[in-house]
Amino acid sequence: MQPKNNAYGARRDFGHGDDFTDMEVSRALRNHGSLYEGLATDVTPTSMHFLLCHFDIPVVDVGQYRLSIHGRIRRPVQLSIDEILKMPEQSYAVTLECSGNGRKNFHPRPKSQPWNDTAVASAEWTGCPLGPLLEKLGVEIDASEILFTGLDQGVEVDEVIKYERSLPIDEALRNGVLLAYAMNGQPLTPPHGYPLRLIVPHWYGMASVKWLRSIEVLDREFHGYYMDKAYRNKSSEDEPGAPITLQKVRSLIIPPGVRYRHDGRRLLKSGPVTLQGKAWAGRQSILRVEISLDRGRSWKDAKLRKSSSEFSWTSWTFPWNAERGRYEILSRATAADGSVQPTSATWNYLGMENNSVQSLSVIVE
Amino acid sequence: MQPKNNAYGARRDFGHGDDFTDMEVSRALRNHGSLYEGLATDVTPTSMHFLLCHFDIPVVDVGQYRLSIHGRIRRPVQLSIDEILKMPEQSYAVTLECSGNGRKNFHPRPKSQPWNDTAVASAEWTGCPLGPLLEKLGVEIDASEILFTGLDQGVEVDEVIKYERSLPIDEALRNGVLLAYAMNGQPLTPPHGYPLRLIVPHWYGMASVKWLRSIEVLDREFHGYYMDKAYRNKSSEDEPGAPITLQKVRSLIIPPGVRYRHDGRRLLKSGPVTLQGKAWAGRQSILRVEISLDRGRSWKDAKLRKSSSEFSWTSWTFPWNAERGRYEILSRATAADGSVQPTSATWNYLGMENNSVQSLSVIVE
Repeated sequence: MQPKNNAYGARRDFGHGDDFTDMEVSRALRNHGSLYEGLATDVTPTSMHFLLCHFDIPVVDVGQYRLSIHGRIRRPVQLSIDEILKMPEQSYAVTLECSGNGRKNFHPRPKSQPWNDTAVASAEWTGCPLGPLLEKLGVEIDASEILFTGLDQGVEVDEVIKYERSLPIDEALRNGVLLAYAMNGQPLTPPHGYPLRLIVPHWYGMASVKWLRSIEVLDREFHGYYMDKAYRNKSSEDEPGAPITLQKVRSLIIPPGVRYRHDGRRLLKSGPVTLQGKAWAGRQSILRVEISLDRGRSWKDAKLRKSSSEFSWTSWTFPWNAERGRYEILSRATAADGSVQPTSATWNYLGMENNSVQSLSVIVE
Repeated sequence: MQPKNNAYGARRDFGHGDDFTDMEVSRALRNHGSLYEGLATDVTPTSMHFLLCHFDIPVVDVGQYRLSIHGRIRRPVQLSIDEILKMPEQSYAVTLECSGNGRKNFHPRPKSQPWNDTAVASAEWTGCPLGPLLEKLGVEIDASEILFTGLDQGVEVDEVIKYERSLPIDEALRNGVLLAYAMNGQPLTPPHGYPLRLIVPHWYGMASVKWLRSIEVLDREFHGYYMDKAYRNKSSEDEPGAPITLQKVRSLIIPPGVRYRHDGRRLLKSGPVTLQGKAWAGRQSILRVEISLDRGRSWKDAKLRKSSSEFSWTSWTFPWNAERGRYEILSRATAADGSVQPTSATWNYLGMENNSVQSLSVIVE
């Protein structure tokens, strides 16, 4: 294995044209990653949580705001935020990851938000559990999907569309799915979905619809742009491909030492150091994280520490007596179902689910 | 005048190689702009305030934290946050702008953080006024500059350096300069300088040193990387150039309607609409903002509304009866000293101070 990119996906030959487009850079300026140092805490501060918004951030007058729950349900309702705040409440950390995380490490590079590896974070979310609420309102026997629609809208291709996604009924009623109104103990920020968003643990982030406007219980399959066109793992534009669902097994390293500003390499003083990082695998628990200090020729097990939340990432540590030299450090996670991070994930047209092993360039002096 | 770029700096021929480098994209993923819709409010929410960090974000144990004030001062001190919180306090909105704002609109494009136009925002900052504090501690008669050093460090070129910048003594003692510990009524977030940062109104953002570690009163000129090499307006790598200081005159338009996701154009329904935006000019007040609906052939005055803070931007409005068609809308500000936004600012090696007139592509249907 010969990783071409360092921790930041930044090649050594920085400064040469790498052919990123203006559209990609414009998206990177609106959205942002969690920063690798954001992996250092079990719960990510709101200010360091990655962010992806499809359209303009909606401005919501919370006094006027109502969440509509309707469709194949016996008691449809229009709920104000005050009414939702009075309902039973739960709080826990949830690891969210964008399904395009790692996109810019694919060759050739699919053109969209050019994520390196940092579109992942774990905040503590507070809200009303969705399943018990829907059961109380009386889901009809023929319900098969739940459609979640956001207040955000814009022109995708040539049409004004809203952001909307559906979940199979069993997934939507599952323990852990929240109507969240708080993030790390504070009301949601505008970019994170104020005043109300969905949180769907273990799924890639596109399922956790922000600025939630309505919940519709359907007796049929929902078709929309963000179900049928985007968020698919497909080999070409025309192929339908497979829908993106649960997060794949993955791990990341918190960069030790200090950063070379121009290319993201790390400079570290020789001596004992504890490498640290995070690992996650959707609904699977993490069985093992292995570290390689020699570009993947040999691997040793890291020590694991589970999160107190069943929906949040596993921390790992690895003691290292760093001697002077140059290193490419890799971490590789294995999930309970036996799935392992690949050296190089399979390329796909939209650049989805790139859970390849990360490589971190470290110079020890 | 024929603007080549639309509101987002996104060319119409998006999708073609625009030659952005991996280094530029890596920076764009760590930093982020304020989003054009963030201009809609007089005070920018923290979550929508632009962000530029040179190095890793320092992790600060606030119990251990001390601000050292020393050098040519009669009573040097080490202050805890609790001690700073007990001092006289002021709060006001301050417009901060990165001196590289607009960098990616220069041709050829200087390689660094590839800002479009969105590295500007106005948050409300709370803290202890610096001037009275230093006067109380007894600035020596030979003091000429104040050096501000942050806790952030990393490798710039081949050397581990700290972020540090100096201000002439008169600028540092000026009304408005704050040791800020709160942003929009909350403790600073880690990326915005927790637990303490400098706020220097009217100057470009590089003067407002974050994660403040020490303040040293000097009887000499300070030379450092971020004074002598970076943050200069120069025509080549070797030329010393002029230091970057106060913000230049500039205006931006809040995009009306909805956004074309792929290229940032706006789609608007025909009928009456009020165009809105912001303008600022460092220490100068805004005298005039003119709007052109025809690519700069004709201009009409917008209506101005000053901020309640003398350190914050001026809002403008412009009523428009939008008829079907395609428009390139421009805004152009004039400051009290007569300086006007140029159609095309003078190119410089580091891509600084690009206050060119913005152009917004709007389709009215």
